[in-house]
Amino acid sequence: MTEDERAIRKLVETWMSASKAGDLATVLGLMADDVVFMVPGREPFGKAAFAAASQGMKDIRIEGRSDIQEMEILDGWAWMRNRLEMTMTAAGGGTPVRRSGYTLTILRKTAQGRWVIARDANLLS
Amino acid sequence: MTEDERAIRKLVETWMSASKAGDLATVLGLMADDVVFMVPGREPFGKAAFAAASQGMKDIRIEGRSDIQEMEILDGWAWMRNRLEMTMTAAGGGTPVRRSGYTLTILRKTAQGRWVIARDANLLS
Repeated sequence: MTEDERAIRKLVETWMSASKAGDLATVLGLMADDVVFMVPGREPFGKAAFAAASQGMKDIRIEGRSDIQEMEILDGWAWMRNRLEMTMTAAGGGTPVRRSGYTLTILRKTAQGRWVIARDANLLS
Repeated sequence: MTEDERAIRKLVETWMSASKAGDLATVLGLMADDVVFMVPGREPFGKAAFAAASQGMKDIRIEGRSDIQEMEILDGWAWMRNRLEMTMTAAGGGTPVRRSGYTLTILRKTAQGRWVIARDANLLS
């Protein structure tokens, strides 16, 4: 496993654990400032909209499992296909909502040598 | 516009016109043999499943409009974000079905210098 692959796998792990912990600052730090997220049925959105949506869900516990299907590392860029299983549970309890599916993610290496998420297509349903 | 960008834009145009003409052989020729398509709500699928689904839809007229939002060309790879509007109409007439939304596509340059679609996440709804 190359250093880059290790770093990207670590980024995914950090994303999952920070989401679970409700640590939005850490999650936001894993994406480029000009990140674009794509989900079915709405217009693409960026970092500010991601932050606002996360704040609106701060009483929801998010647990996710990630299974990286493949990864291709290029010069300063990478792409990755991931299978995710997410469970969301309201703070007061209630029926957990489960979603699973695939993502296609483009990552970029910053001038500081850190990988960040640049584009993400999320097909969970 | 670089030669690569021109070639990729041409590929998208050819995809649209061949889909409209029901020319499946041409459409299949625009993808890598190991292509992976991702859509919401089902498992990823490859070239054979794409062909089978297209054959099952051969009496449906497909008209599409594509608006490339951005493209990044790397060494032997590229990624592209596209906005599509598709209209599907049954051969005998009937109410057209419209879908619109975004795609995130990874392309690869073959050893022969031709661009082909390698991965495609389709978020149309």
